[in-house]
Amino acid sequence: MSQILLKNGFIVSMNKEEQVFTQGDVLIENDRIKAVGHVEQSLVTPDVEIVDAKGKIIMPGLINTHVHTSQQLGRGLGDDVNLLTWLHERIWPYESSLTEEDSYISTLLCCLEQIRAGVTSFAEPGGQFVSGMAKAVNQIGIRAKLAKSVMDCGEGLPKVWQKTTQEELDKQEEDLRKFHNTADGRVQVWFGLRTIFNNSDDLIIKTKELADKYGVGVHMHVAEVKEEVEYALETRGATTVKHLYNLDVLDKNFLAVHTVWLTNEEVNMFKEKRVKVSHNPAAAMRVLGFAKIPRMLKEGICVTLGTDGAAASNRMDLIDEMWLTSLIHKGWRLDPTIMKAQEIIRMVTVNGAKALLEEDNIGSLEVGKKADVIIINPNSAGMLPIHDAIANLVTSMHSSNVESTMCDGKWIMKDREILTVDEDSIINEAKERAESIYKRAGIVLPHRFPYI
Amino acid sequence: MSQILLKNGFIVSMNKEEQVFTQGDVLIENDRIKAVGHVEQSLVTPDVEIVDAKGKIIMPGLINTHVHTSQQLGRGLGDDVNLLTWLHERIWPYESSLTEEDSYISTLLCCLEQIRAGVTSFAEPGGQFVSGMAKAVNQIGIRAKLAKSVMDCGEGLPKVWQKTTQEELDKQEEDLRKFHNTADGRVQVWFGLRTIFNNSDDLIIKTKELADKYGVGVHMHVAEVKEEVEYALETRGATTVKHLYNLDVLDKNFLAVHTVWLTNEEVNMFKEKRVKVSHNPAAAMRVLGFAKIPRMLKEGICVTLGTDGAAASNRMDLIDEMWLTSLIHKGWRLDPTIMKAQEIIRMVTVNGAKALLEEDNIGSLEVGKKADVIIINPNSAGMLPIHDAIANLVTSMHSSNVESTMCDGKWIMKDREILTVDEDSIINEAKERAESIYKRAGIVLPHRFPYI
Repeated sequence: MSQILLKNGFIVSMNKEEQVFTQGDVLIENDRIKAVGHVEQSLVTPDVEIVDAKGKIIMPGLINTHVHTSQQLGRGLGDDVNLLTWLHERIWPYESSLTEEDSYISTLLCCLEQIRAGVTSFAEPGGQFVSGMAKAVNQIGIRAKLAKSVMDCGEGLPKVWQKTTQEELDKQEEDLRKFHNTADGRVQVWFGLRTIFNNSDDLIIKTKELADKYGVGVHMHVAEVKEEVEYALETRGATTVKHLYNLDVLDKNFLAVHTVWLTNEEVNMFKEKRVKVSHNPAAAMRVLGFAKIPRMLKEGICVTLGTDGAAASNRMDLIDEMWLTSLIHKGWRLDPTIMKAQEIIRMVTVNGAKALLEEDNIGSLEVGKKADVIIINPNSAGMLPIHDAIANLVTSMHSSNVESTMCDGKWIMKDREILTVDEDSIINEAKERAESIYKRAGIVLPHRFPYI
Repeated sequence: MSQILLKNGFIVSMNKEEQVFTQGDVLIENDRIKAVGHVEQSLVTPDVEIVDAKGKIIMPGLINTHVHTSQQLGRGLGDDVNLLTWLHERIWPYESSLTEEDSYISTLLCCLEQIRAGVTSFAEPGGQFVSGMAKAVNQIGIRAKLAKSVMDCGEGLPKVWQKTTQEELDKQEEDLRKFHNTADGRVQVWFGLRTIFNNSDDLIIKTKELADKYGVGVHMHVAEVKEEVEYALETRGATTVKHLYNLDVLDKNFLAVHTVWLTNEEVNMFKEKRVKVSHNPAAAMRVLGFAKIPRMLKEGICVTLGTDGAAASNRMDLIDEMWLTSLIHKGWRLDPTIMKAQEIIRMVTVNGAKALLEEDNIGSLEVGKKADVIIINPNSAGMLPIHDAIANLVTSMHSSNVESTMCDGKWIMKDREILTVDEDSIINEAKERAESIYKRAGIVLPHRFPYI
């Protein structure tokens, strides 16, 4: 039995009452939280590891509900170009050139960025190699829902991606049998659906059936661009959300990502079916548009935050996404009172946990829950002074303020040092592999300034 | 004579041809740049300080054209409230409670945040104590245009701010005589105009005359909120920009900030008069709206970036503002090809220098210019890989990637360590003063979650 005691911190617990303990302790025993707030001395063993958190903020590890870990080596491949160039000349050539080992290194690099930004759990919508991702997640110590990005139709797909419905279903079941609930339960396998452009109704329905059978979630890009909604209307007779509603796949284990082009009627469908939403503000600003997040929150829909992939939105930093979320809707609606800091903190903690179907295990610091915890050091010129701590976490904190990150009771990062893997060697290997994939994929980026 | 040689860096020079030297050197002699790119060995003295910049990016120090240094101790006082609450219950009580010493410490803290984000020059639109700001800027080693925020009319102003036109003009001239061109020329004094709500025509016209007399700039908030434009139309017979045009104060030494509510005709007035624009995307998203930046750039207007103040937009981080600039206009216009990375790099370098009337001295790495230089270390999980270096600087870089910051040939920060002041003691004093001002000003912020 091992214990860790975090002492005298400012604890943002996110428990049922959303209590903040202005000076309190957190006791961790093995992988779970044993006590929060005032810790009885009788609970503490003599060989406890004590961490002084005076002047620091302790909160639940953040939850990123949408991140393409396999895109990490493609960061910057798609900046400032239109959607078709992005897809056909940059992302498809890149992604279809990845090997399983590339996916592994890409996931490691992505996890490093996330751990440094205080993320302890994420949902991956699907690259091609669940095996590579699972290996990385297992090794680095984070918690993840992994999926394959399945496609059984659509024009212009790279040859390596042209699969039948049954092949895609079989592959997902195989991944699930191999990797689900591995790494002490930190790795779970979900089902992925790319978009309605590339998914037949048959695939969508059977995927949902399998997810129900195995008690896991379905992760899908939904109403991402206007063209998608129009395409669904033309080819399936209803806009994306209405069509999914008609197929009866919307449900509480359905994680809908982006959800930019929804009518109010479709927002109500999400509410009725208790669909979970992943809002990705940076990606939305890049090409998509403004999702009706304030309305969804008002309707009580479980909205969470995601970073998307590094080839789509560059910074895989959930803390920056919180800041962005607090800004863009105010600007769009010209109302500075919407998207309050406390709502945004809920998105990356308790709401994230619900979206990952893990509300009993993670998302808050409560007795019996998994010890996914971060320690924030606000003593920097960029985060001080703290007049309104909850606001500062959303509007001033940077990932550089995250001092330590713990998942499942184990330190992944302590005092800014990554403990579970060799960070420098991952960075070096990532650089080499990124260059090699770029060449292999035949991508050519123009120089923005003359190179000498 | 002292020399510093930065060796083997990836140099983004921003010179006339916008050349990038993929592996080159920068030689600095005293306060100026002696050579860039290939450095002749004969130029180098034996006692030169050599800095290995292999794998690093060298670029001109960034230029922040709008930052309220005196608001730094008020960070987080105005989150998620409407404009009137923000102004009357939070910012005016806070700002009018500041002492000269508070302003000094606030400016030091603000400069620390900026230096860590690679900023070497800024324009301050005006707190109340140019003296406090000048002392801080002198000491910490950065370059700044300082102004007093002048007001001679308007309703509801705190008593301490109720001044006559002549008092405000006299005070500005006095500040200029005392502080202009001090600190080896790093401190210059400009003229400030708060907004048309609080500035009489007489004050506006005479301020411009004085600025011309002394060969300095005028820094003013212009067309910031819709109500301002309507107010100008009602009380002065023309919208803000048209009225300033009619008063004949728009000119190439006029720095217009925010500029959100402009008609196309008013954009053309800016073009005609060669007005400089400071775009502050985070502040704009907080309460203001979307400025027509893509149109202004197309018209050849000199657009620059600013962070505004910590009580308005929380992060005083110009690197984050670059990222935001690259995102919000794309999202608003649904066009991912606008606001390209190279345009944004120009905003914070060469355009910033023009706006500060210093294009001959700063903004690029060229022989004879002032040695305002930053070194960026991109070897982090958050910035790698680099397929498109110029894009990565805008869309992936964080302030934590800025390794060293030099102004006027002197290191302010080297290898992340601040060399000119004692950072910890500033942080501690800032915390204490912030709490004391908060109490003195009688501000009460509600708790967002229950505190125990």
